[in-house]
Amino acid sequence: MAESAAGEATPVAQTSSAWLDVVGRRCLAEAWEFAAARAAEHFAGRAEGLLAETALPDFVAGGKCLRPLFAYVGWCCGKAESDAALRAAASLELLHCFALAQDDVMDQSPVRRGRPALQARFARWHADQGWRGSARRVGDSAAILAGDLFLVWAEQMLRGSGLDPTALARGWPHYDRMRSELAVGQLADLVGDARALPSWETALDVLRRKSGNYTVRRPLEFGAALAGCDAAGLDRLGEFGGLVGEAFQLRDDLLGVFGDAAATGKPDGQDLREHKASSVVVLAARMAGPRQRAALAEVAAVEDVDDGVVDRWRGLIVATGARERMEELIRERTEKAIAAADAAVIPRHALGLLAELATRSTERTR
Amino acid sequence: MAESAAGEATPVAQTSSAWLDVVGRRCLAEAWEFAAARAAEHFAGRAEGLLAETALPDFVAGGKCLRPLFAYVGWCCGKAESDAALRAAASLELLHCFALAQDDVMDQSPVRRGRPALQARFARWHADQGWRGSARRVGDSAAILAGDLFLVWAEQMLRGSGLDPTALARGWPHYDRMRSELAVGQLADLVGDARALPSWETALDVLRRKSGNYTVRRPLEFGAALAGCDAAGLDRLGEFGGLVGEAFQLRDDLLGVFGDAAATGKPDGQDLREHKASSVVVLAARMAGPRQRAALAEVAAVEDVDDGVVDRWRGLIVATGARERMEELIRERTEKAIAAADAAVIPRHALGLLAELATRSTERTR
Repeated sequence: MAESAAGEATPVAQTSSAWLDVVGRRCLAEAWEFAAARAAEHFAGRAEGLLAETALPDFVAGGKCLRPLFAYVGWCCGKAESDAALRAAASLELLHCFALAQDDVMDQSPVRRGRPALQARFARWHADQGWRGSARRVGDSAAILAGDLFLVWAEQMLRGSGLDPTALARGWPHYDRMRSELAVGQLADLVGDARALPSWETALDVLRRKSGNYTVRRPLEFGAALAGCDAAGLDRLGEFGGLVGEAFQLRDDLLGVFGDAAATGKPDGQDLREHKASSVVVLAARMAGPRQRAALAEVAAVEDVDDGVVDRWRGLIVATGARERMEELIRERTEKAIAAADAAVIPRHALGLLAELATRSTERTR
Repeated sequence: MAESAAGEATPVAQTSSAWLDVVGRRCLAEAWEFAAARAAEHFAGRAEGLLAETALPDFVAGGKCLRPLFAYVGWCCGKAESDAALRAAASLELLHCFALAQDDVMDQSPVRRGRPALQARFARWHADQGWRGSARRVGDSAAILAGDLFLVWAEQMLRGSGLDPTALARGWPHYDRMRSELAVGQLADLVGDARALPSWETALDVLRRKSGNYTVRRPLEFGAALAGCDAAGLDRLGEFGGLVGEAFQLRDDLLGVFGDAAATGKPDGQDLREHKASSVVVLAARMAGPRQRAALAEVAAVEDVDDGVVDRWRGLIVATGARERMEELIRERTEKAIAAADAAVIPRHALGLLAELATRSTERTR
């Protein structure tokens, strides 16, 4: 089917896009169904279950399924399409729900995809019951536990995907590395967050470890490993994935400063409000002249960053040239990645999908 | 070796005890080594790694390995001793570290086993660096992530234990159920914590789901399933485990009110200080006469429970007869469990181990 989807009659990019849309929807449906079945199994008929039974599957809905798509395209680099492989890939969306649920608690982000974050939803529910105790504490704890459940369910879904044990055995080392790197990267990010502005090299390293690898490179390698791709293929995909992953996170950091709340579902300039030492903030400091640097330090020192400060801060970043430079860095990496992928070891029918996914990941507005 | 350890020449209980001590120490060493190797792999040479590389293995040290022991005795009900099975059982200690690390954040317990809890250790470290940002927020987030790593590592250790795929395949359903029940039970406990005093039946249900099953019943079933025990054996062990698990948690609740800080490593009367609706508190309310009930309601309404209030509250609980009744309930369950285990389907050499483990779990002071 990858062959036919990337056939000769229609432009590859357009057809790849339609194929990715279909696969993404199928992955989301599989992940949602799995979560809904587990939630019903564990929460049916319980007081707290009235909320958890709907809140957990709800949290899965609306995802972009980027990681499942990378994993499934990785699979398609080695084997023909398969429902079992699609379910295995889809399990990464539950893994992502784990990361998001706990991330929102750690960042105290009230909003996710334009709706109340999980901890906010649990806190609100607790307050509505009129029960004693801190609604915030209950909400935070419930969202952490919900995250734990997603982590367990993700692995359970993968193990029960229908892939044969030999294929799964090839995937586990990649899967375990991805999960550990995710938590370790978040830990590094916590520290980076709190420390004085890091160097550009450190910012790039954190960005790679925190999200780039987790979003693009590892899912792609994982899918390809499941399909039995050889070391040369994995290396080539790893190179592609590393570059696209960096570009993905550079875009994410740009959206964290300049993104539109209506599209991102997060408050305007959220990273500025949280004083995140993200790549664009670090780059701006690096590119700033002495006077710009002083002005940047001044806004960064404001404790309560309101809309006015966000506007001023954004203007200063643009003035340093950092925004434009970020766009260049994203473009450079994406082009280099597509060139790296366009090689002998990756099957022809997967190339169009990889190129389209690279573009989607790095040119998005949400 | 189980045969020889429970041989004829020496009293079973004494020999079982020595055997359990050795196995417990071996399990702890295996779990510690696995955590230390993973921590070194992921954190070596990083700023935050200086702490995480030692703090995570440190957190494993000092555990009682109760869950690994139940799992390994479960294994011994079906098969001869094996190093691979011991490693598989030991992985449950890492799963337990996951639960403890996040539990301490949710409860904001500053102390674990008489030493600073993980989030307190990370917070202290952060404060010592003189970095900006909330030390408490960084500490809490780091401990949540450390918990996530333990959850991932536990499963990785199990999968790589050396047990053959057929044995592992028998264990996964039990393992997944145990992990999900743990999180779901914690969620129920959160709600019970916040709600007005529940009924005795609800308190027992939460107690079973939150800890009894997770500590005794599921590990035992899991180990027996790995060893290929048949349905009749699993049922009988499940019955034993259910009863001992309840007794274990009833003891835990007693220690939460009456335990000695020097032995438990937690503040005296911690459950009272946190207004936990634990079984002993619920039972006291149920057994109290009208005047006692009013006095109990009065101490329960105190926001800041200090040493004086703890003393008074303890005295009131004793006066209702609830403490004595709890001891009876524990004894009844333990005796019934040992009687249930003493049946045709459980091998003779495992019976002494089960009886000794039941006693250890329910007569402990820490």
